[in-house]
Amino acid sequence: MALTLTPILGFPIIKEGDCLSTVISTLLPENDICLQDGDILVIAQKIVSKVEGRFVNLNYVQPSSLALAYQPIVQKDPRLIELILKESSSILRVRPGVIIVEHNLGFICANAGIDHSNVACPDDGGEYVLLLPENPDISAQRIREEIYENCAKSIGILIIDSHGRPWRNGTVGVAIGISGLPALMDLRGTKDLFGRVLQITQVATADELAAAASLMMGQASEGTPVIHIRGFPYPLRESGLPELIRPKSQDLFR
Amino acid sequence: MALTLTPILGFPIIKEGDCLSTVISTLLPENDICLQDGDILVIAQKIVSKVEGRFVNLNYVQPSSLALAYQPIVQKDPRLIELILKESSSILRVRPGVIIVEHNLGFICANAGIDHSNVACPDDGGEYVLLLPENPDISAQRIREEIYENCAKSIGILIIDSHGRPWRNGTVGVAIGISGLPALMDLRGTKDLFGRVLQITQVATADELAAAASLMMGQASEGTPVIHIRGFPYPLRESGLPELIRPKSQDLFR
Repeated sequence: MALTLTPILGFPIIKEGDCLSTVISTLLPENDICLQDGDILVIAQKIVSKVEGRFVNLNYVQPSSLALAYQPIVQKDPRLIELILKESSSILRVRPGVIIVEHNLGFICANAGIDHSNVACPDDGGEYVLLLPENPDISAQRIREEIYENCAKSIGILIIDSHGRPWRNGTVGVAIGISGLPALMDLRGTKDLFGRVLQITQVATADELAAAASLMMGQASEGTPVIHIRGFPYPLRESGLPELIRPKSQDLFR
Repeated sequence: MALTLTPILGFPIIKEGDCLSTVISTLLPENDICLQDGDILVIAQKIVSKVEGRFVNLNYVQPSSLALAYQPIVQKDPRLIELILKESSSILRVRPGVIIVEHNLGFICANAGIDHSNVACPDDGGEYVLLLPENPDISAQRIREEIYENCAKSIGILIIDSHGRPWRNGTVGVAIGISGLPALMDLRGTKDLFGRVLQITQVATADELAAAASLMMGQASEGTPVIHIRGFPYPLRESGLPELIRPKSQDLFR
């Protein structure tokens, strides 16, 4: 069976307090998509953050002495540095333009995932940035439950962001919130065509799907923040972001 | 437009000297796929290595003193360690079961991508492993040209492998050979919906597609080593693996 990724067209500009599941449920028929059990919707982090009101007005941020100390190295607005520090549990690298952090959510990323672009600020003259959702797994679960209420279909929900990577150029989509699909597939103990037990143990299926959907969202595309997936090749199950986070003690590149 | 990934079913066991483009061109109609200009074929590294005869019989490998010195740490066959060292230009980390190297091809990976599983050795009692293709970009280009000769369609060819990553559990598919599709899309200078110039500069489109196709290959699946792609959202162009390799001087995690 084929895997099909279909961008949901016609998205309005999303604002704080909008109900994503209602917007999506309305747009699906307009896009000739009839949800089926086992489908997945992949949602860009940005619109989840927006409906959850994760805007911060930099005018109300007071940089700490630590943020001010980093400023000459990072060369960013010290109020933004302050927010990056607050959103993070540890700092891995500091360079001009970038702080690589362990986000409070557990993953490693640049600048705590705080977003300047496409912010569509509240219209009050403030200088707004957008934080990641407070708990994307819970956001995903809520959207999934609401979709079930609207459409009576059991689907998976994946919330994604774009991350840079060590060693390779370019960003790729990665999972930051997961509900109802396997973050990992554990193939330990299965045998290959020649009866040899496989060495590779776990496939990051949610990240592979995140990358696939990211390809169809583009980057400038708040216009296509949701991708419909049909044909995901593994059974859906309960899961969550923590499955994808490698424990610090098992990581060679911290 | 949707992106569709279709596994090509019915693959025979691939051996040294087989012509992949002929095998694929024969299987496409059996899979009800009629190639179109702009389509992409994603091919698992393993079958490319096999047709290119990249088998090595460990019985003929003499471990160097360096390989023997690593053996107590790595706890692998010193002949395999010797091959890993030969395939690599530098070593990043050494731990039980794994050597993280800069492969001669330029990317960072575990154990130089040398494969034990699914090897289908020549039947002479040797202990075989399989190296990566000598130059996957050239392999991709050759297959692309042969497909053009067979089918008169201009397509892209992507050769992929599965890599582990720092910080996150599980492997994901990544590009190791590219011909005729953009490794990166450079969005520098483009503006978002609100006229703000985008901060994210480059998207690793080939790696995102590699991850997507990997999802449909599974891991134990020499049975589905080729995935047909339709609806790739960017114009095809000449490209290659070097676009994806971050220069050592710009890398914070070496």
